[in-house]
Amino acid sequence: MATPGELAALLNITQELDGLKTSVAATNASVDAFFLCTMAIVIYFMQCGFAFLEAGAVRSKHTTNILIKNILDSFIGCIAYYIFGWALAFGEPGNAFCGNSFWAMAQLSDSKLPLWFFQFVFAATSATIVSGALAERCDFIAYVVYSFLLTGFVYPIVSHWAWNPIGWLAVGLTAQNGTLVSHYKDFAGSGVVHITGGTAALVAAALLGPRINRFDPETGESRAIPGHSVPLVSLGGFVLFFGFLAFNGGSQLHIQQANDGAVVANAMVNTVLSGSTGAFTTLLLTRLLRPHWSLLRTINGGLAGMVAICAGCNVLYPWGACVMGFFAAGSYMAWSELVLAMRIDD
Amino acid sequence: MATPGELAALLNITQELDGLKTSVAATNASVDAFFLCTMAIVIYFMQCGFAFLEAGAVRSKHTTNILIKNILDSFIGCIAYYIFGWALAFGEPGNAFCGNSFWAMAQLSDSKLPLWFFQFVFAATSATIVSGALAERCDFIAYVVYSFLLTGFVYPIVSHWAWNPIGWLAVGLTAQNGTLVSHYKDFAGSGVVHITGGTAALVAAALLGPRINRFDPETGESRAIPGHSVPLVSLGGFVLFFGFLAFNGGSQLHIQQANDGAVVANAMVNTVLSGSTGAFTTLLLTRLLRPHWSLLRTINGGLAGMVAICAGCNVLYPWGACVMGFFAAGSYMAWSELVLAMRIDD
Amino acid sequence: MATPGELAALLNITQELDGLKTSVAATNASVDAFFLCTMAIVIYFMQCGFAFLEAGAVRSKHTTNILIKNILDSFIGCIAYYIFGWALAFGEPGNAFCGNSFWAMAQLSDSKLPLWFFQFVFAATSATIVSGALAERCDFIAYVVYSFLLTGFVYPIVSHWAWNPIGWLAVGLTAQNGTLVSHYKDFAGSGVVHITGGTAALVAAALLGPRINRFDPETGESRAIPGHSVPLVSLGGFVLFFGFLAFNGGSQLHIQQANDGAVVANAMVNTVLSGSTGAFTTLLLTRLLRPHWSLLRTINGGLAGMVAICAGCNVLYPWGACVMGFFAAGSYMAWSELVLAMRIDD
Repeated sequence: MATPGELAALLNITQELDGLKTSVAATNASVDAFFLCTMAIVIYFMQCGFAFLEAGAVRSKHTTNILIKNILDSFIGCIAYYIFGWALAFGEPGNAFCGNSFWAMAQLSDSKLPLWFFQFVFAATSATIVSGALAERCDFIAYVVYSFLLTGFVYPIVSHWAWNPIGWLAVGLTAQNGTLVSHYKDFAGSGVVHITGGTAALVAAALLGPRINRFDPETGESRAIPGHSVPLVSLGGFVLFFGFLAFNGGSQLHIQQANDGAVVANAMVNTVLSGSTGAFTTLLLTRLLRPHWSLLRTINGGLAGMVAICAGCNVLYPWGACVMGFFAAGSYMAWSELVLAMRIDD
Repeated sequence: MATPGELAALLNITQELDGLKTSVAATNASVDAFFLCTMAIVIYFMQCGFAFLEAGAVRSKHTTNILIKNILDSFIGCIAYYIFGWALAFGEPGNAFCGNSFWAMAQLSDSKLPLWFFQFVFAATSATIVSGALAERCDFIAYVVYSFLLTGFVYPIVSHWAWNPIGWLAVGLTAQNGTLVSHYKDFAGSGVVHITGGTAALVAAALLGPRINRFDPETGESRAIPGHSVPLVSLGGFVLFFGFLAFNGGSQLHIQQANDGAVVANAMVNTVLSGSTGAFTTLLLTRLLRPHWSLLRTINGGLAGMVAICAGCNVLYPWGACVMGFFAAGSYMAWSELVLAMRIDD
Repeated sequence: MATPGELAALLNITQELDGLKTSVAATNASVDAFFLCTMAIVIYFMQCGFAFLEAGAVRSKHTTNILIKNILDSFIGCIAYYIFGWALAFGEPGNAFCGNSFWAMAQLSDSKLPLWFFQFVFAATSATIVSGALAERCDFIAYVVYSFLLTGFVYPIVSHWAWNPIGWLAVGLTAQNGTLVSHYKDFAGSGVVHITGGTAALVAAALLGPRINRFDPETGESRAIPGHSVPLVSLGGFVLFFGFLAFNGGSQLHIQQANDGAVVANAMVNTVLSGSTGAFTTLLLTRLLRPHWSLLRTINGGLAGMVAICAGCNVLYPWGACVMGFFAAGSYMAWSELVLAMRIDD
């Protein structure tokens, strides 16, 4: 039997141990919040990247127009995501299609705020992808309404499907014998963010039709409408390359659990590798087809590589990221050449 | 009574526990330093934001002049803050008016360096606010002297009042019966940074008078002097929106204590919400008054929202941040229209 | 003798303590990874800074050319560092000259990925330094080949010498009696990064010769070739000032060990101080020699200060950083004036 002194020592140790456990848990939660917030502010800066990539790629008379759209879509998207977006994406209890609480963040626990912020900057990214596709031919008010709807409704519901554990894509298909047949995985949003944004862009571009004089009215031949500023495009590209590292690395959503650091770094390394291979492949393919090197294509090839790697950047081996970048560049080049070869005869 | 083996086990546990406590405390201190340094470098980048916001808003012939002022004020401010600033703000023991030690960082403990760096970037921000107000009409040497005085003396003393626990604003007023009557709170410097900078700007603008041709010499009517580059202004705006998130979130000054993560995220979310509401409100108000949408006003409205929320971004509810942004935009618009309506008849 | 209950309590405590130790170790590793990744993405953004500093400093007809080189060198450098670079720098076991395993990251442990990413962005910085020195006169393909060789072979081997514990510079010279005689220290790469880049630039510039019309063909007098855009140069400067803080602070490579926070902050504070003193000194020296203030020189003086402080920014006192910035500015000015005074008579 222990003496009273020994018992007291044991008791004291137990209390100190409990205190330390609480302290470590608080540190861990704080480090995760710090990680999410830091990655989120860098991702928010991608708005600047999209804005300048597009501003340089249009004719100079449309610069102000495209800049105001890019600035506004994150602001309007923020209001939309605040009122409707989070509720539809992560409202509890929700169903397989969407969430249904926390409208305007009501009753949302403070501890969810870092994640809210991170998810919002993702939603804003998804919305801003579209502005480039509608460049030089979308009414201002229509674009504002579009931004509100995509960030407040469309994107949140899609992200609910894939990233809320009860979403129908996240749950996956189960066979009759109870085994999981398929299960959608998308680490950093190749589908959730980029296919959503890209599909919205395609639909909108189809509805709006090509820009005036994009095709020769006589022959229907495609005519290039070159952008007006290489430095602006390059600035946008650099900012996006910077932001994509946070976009893909941050998608781990936490940093203090075992192996988190390696996963985040893996995502970032793969992003750089896929982007690099994509840019270099595009450079060479363009040179094969044209008599000159193309800066704009190279930037787009790098972005294609970084977009393509989003879904699997946390698990691919580095050589896989290089392969991914290679095919992303090929895919980008094929579509790009197809558009240039298109004829509209009407 | 415990056997020797059991006693040894107890002793061993106690030692391991102490070692772990030391390790956790070191981690916590490091995480705080990491947080302060990361937020500080993003805030330092706001110098770029102010520079381009102003460079685009002046006539092209003044671009170089305003850029050199903006680059210099952070450099000269750094020397001033190094020699005098920190000593006046946080020198110990100090009195209710200012601090009085650590001149040129002498005898400053290494553990204070992260906080020094963070406080310096705040001081540099306060100084650079003024450069825009003096644009196109301030002598270069006068501006250099001003930067030195504001960053080395004025701002540090004001920040001492509010943010040093012994400053007279921080102590607050106490009634005769000993209860605290009032107590100044300013989380991220709506007063300490922005009112200080704004007041200095107002005084300087009053001393310098309006720019040549700012008012019609015949009728005294206000004449617009439009800026020369929308992309430069937009770049500045985007960089400032990015930096403001670190500015307001970083003001918590530590990240590892219980609830810190939620507070930092709350500050950032409120900053985005207030900026978004401010920008959107300004967009609509300007459209009501003018026949076109205004990108420059929208950017300024967003900045007004982010400035206005500084003081309370850590405690306001999200809907409060929206209300704040709304009134910030209204206030910005009212003053802006007032200036445009002004006449100088002399 | 302890009762069974007491023994169980002891055992339980031991297990909990072990669990907590594992948890704290995981947190510490994660915080280090988080630190490396965050600093690395900011350093990667320095590519944007170099690109615009150079794009503004050349004639406008060369803007696209210099931008594509700057974008490509990081992409091509990434592929080169992936296949050869890391293996030569940190491949195990290696010898005093270079490493020899982990080609194409094969068999590289996941836990090394954050460090890989950080070392890669350093290599990319070293390569991009050269592009400015070759501006307006280097063949595109030659530059691509150069980038590949420098990032994949030259820089990794140099960094192995200094930063791999078995490199011959890191081991240092040992006298016959066994005492260490000298020992190379270079915290953030004044030598490893900047002298390597600078030497490559000097060799390349000597091989290529001056730009056409850089010297009067008749008299051999030096003729200024002014850059075309002050805003682009300034943008580059601001981005580099931002990135240098992460470059120098991040060189500690970890953040959670005792005193790490203070060292990182010390490095950042010294970087700002040295840059500020360098910029201010250059401003004054230029004004003494010329009838006007020079923005471009001021930016270069700030960069000279930040480059010069790299090697010792972790240990110098703040006043030492100021002295360093002063001499860096003097050195920059002396070389710069020397070049302007040069004559080429042939």
